[in-house]
Order: sequence, then structure tokens, then C-alpha cells
Amino acid sequence: METTRIMPRSGAAFPLARGQLLTVLDPLGTQVSDLLAFAADDVREVISNGRTFDYEETLRLTRGNRIWSNRSRVLLTIEEDSVGCHDFLLTPCSVDTFRHFYPDKPEHRGCFGNLAEALAPYGVTADDIPVAFNCFMNVPIDSTGGISVLPPPSRAGDSVSFRAEQDLIIGLTACSAYASNGGTFKPIDYRIED
Amino acid sequence: METTRIMPRSGAAFPLARGQLLTVLDPLGTQVSDLLAFAADDVREVISNGRTFDYEETLRLTRGNRIWSNRSRVLLTIEEDSVGCHDFLLTPCSVDTFRHFYPDKPEHRGCFGNLAEALAPYGVTADDIPVAFNCFMNVPIDSTGGISVLPPPSRAGDSVSFRAEQDLIIGLTACSAYASNGGTFKPIDYRIED
Repeated sequence: METTRIMPRSGAAFPLARGQLLTVLDPLGTQVSDLLAFAADDVREVISNGRTFDYEETLRLTRGNRIWSNRSRVLLTIEEDSVGCHDFLLTPCSVDTFRHFYPDKPEHRGCFGNLAEALAPYGVTADDIPVAFNCFMNVPIDSTGGISVLPPPSRAGDSVSFRAEQDLIIGLTACSAYASNGGTFKPIDYRIED
Repeated sequence: METTRIMPRSGAAFPLARGQLLTVLDPLGTQVSDLLAFAADDVREVISNGRTFDYEETLRLTRGNRIWSNRSRVLLTIEEDSVGCHDFLLTPCSVDTFRHFYPDKPEHRGCFGNLAEALAPYGVTADDIPVAFNCFMNVPIDSTGGISVLPPPSRAGDSVSFRAEQDLIIGLTACSAYASNGGTFKPIDYRIED
């Protein structure tokens, strides 16, 4: 089965036909992958954390949960999940978040810039990029609502699989931020099955 | 000081100049108001729950917290807050959420439809409507990430005030959903001070 590699601190975009299964793999462990899904026939329809939280009645999405669009349609269903820890609260890291959180570190366009470039050929603009589904990202919530970003619990070979419920355009990254991957920058692999 | 009333299950949109203070009041108690803010010079810039959670490092926003845009600018600062309970996780109620959660009740276009109509003259389309800042909305999160919608704790006369940090277009509703206002439909009042 063919696996495609997304190199560290980069991103990719590709079509995913209705019925196909997308598996996102963490080949080395402790890495995050930001995932976006747009309706292929109109990219103004996109995954929505708010609609998903509302319909699924949880912030913690795993096997069996569905990812809904801003137009209240299911775009993806999570079919397999060897980690059970993902985030759908935080926007992709960007040059602005690098300036804010890492003022002493070199600037980087981050997952946001990588997604914008990869998705541009499909007609997606930067303003169309919402909160991504952040595979393996570890964002605990304390009793007062405070949040933090900890290293992901994923180990080498862990994966999460999504069934496409519509014809989609997918955006996918190997995360560029320091906090989300424990200060390391690693690749992400993915494969598509019919 | 002039106060404007938003009638039950309706919405409004209006400009708010940089430096002005918008106060959202619950005149009868136990009511929710969905608030949106767009940059007046380009409505593709809009409040973002994901950017706000990231920069403010909390899901529970109250006095002193700032509400950020999808372009990483502060659009509003919360200056006063007599309730301290608001939601920024859930999208505005819509005809789709009514069909989903209240299949036995009459359909209603909800806050989503009310916001879309009120904001249309400013060039905002339905697809431009993100998660709103839901004043007084009570969405507890349990230890597993599960969420529920309970009646708001606001009492008659309670309010929350926002300072505009940019020239804005505001969308504001008196919420139409059953769960968010304890099964009652009440008005919302607002006032603007220089």
C-alpha cells in the first residue's frame, strides 16, 4: 500500500473521493498533523469545529465521531484511531503565532502558510482556512477552562483514519510549531484506500 | 443613555467605531446573545474562536480577555462582565440545528439565519459566519470533554461590555434555540457609548 510522506514543517493538498479512506500516520512519534477538508464542488464549505462540537456533543473526537461542515453536512467520519487524542480548538500555527509565542525563534509561516500554499490551486484563500482538525495534538483543558499545549502522546506507527462522506479537497501538514511536537520537527505520512 | 432592544428570536447588525464600548444586556435574565464582529474595511476578517483560544490560553473568556480575528488582530476587549459565563465553542443555531435537536418543534432559521439577514447589507454571506461569541451561554465541559447546553446564569440586568479595537461591523441576536435560554425566548438590549 503506497504511503506518501509530508516532509517536516511542510504541507500538502489532494482530492479525496467520497468513500475513500484517508489514514494519517505519525511515522516517528510525537508529531502533530493539521487536517482540513473542503467540499470539492464548492470550497466555501469546510469543516467547522463549532458545528462538530454541537452535533457530536463533545470536544474529544475519536472513532465513531463525525466531522461536520459549516453547512451542517458530515464531511468525514473517524473510522480508526490508535491514539484518541486530537485537538479541534486551535487554529494552525502561523507567522503571527510564531511572533507571539516564540519571539526569540526564527519566524516561520507555519501550518497556516503551508496549508494556504498547498490549497491555493484549489481556489482556497488564506481567509478560508478555519480551525483545523489537529491529529495527535495534546491540548488539555483544566477545571477553569485554561488550556495548554503538551507533546502529543502518539508513538511511532500510530494513526487515525477518516472516511470521506463527500468528494473532498484535503489539506494536511507536518506541524511546524515548537509546543505542539515537543520541540522536534518530524514528517507525517498518509495513505489513501478505496 | 439610549438602549436598543433586539426582539425575541431576531437579530441586528450595526457599525461600531474603534474606541466605542458596546454593552450587551440581558433585560429579563436567562437569555443568550450571539455576537459577531467583522473588520469594517474588509468583512473577510472576523472573530475566530481558534485564534482567541490560542492567544488567550483559555476557553473561558471574561473581563480582560481579548477577542482575536482570523488574521491575528484584536477586534474586541472585554471590559466589564457581570456574569463571567459565555461560550465560544458552538456555532449559531440554524434551521439545521433545529431539525437535528428539536425534530418535533417548528423549524426556525435561528441566530444563523437572523445574523445572515442582518449582515447581508454589509457584504457578509452565510458562509462567512463563524462560531459566534455567545454572551451568557452556559456550556459546561465534563472531564471527558463532553459538553452540554444549560440555561444561562444571567439575571435581569446583567451585562457584558466590549471595547472595539478596530472599526467593526457587529452582528447581535436574541437567541432562538430552546436549550440555550431554558425554553424561553426573550429580548436582548444593547447600548453603545463613545
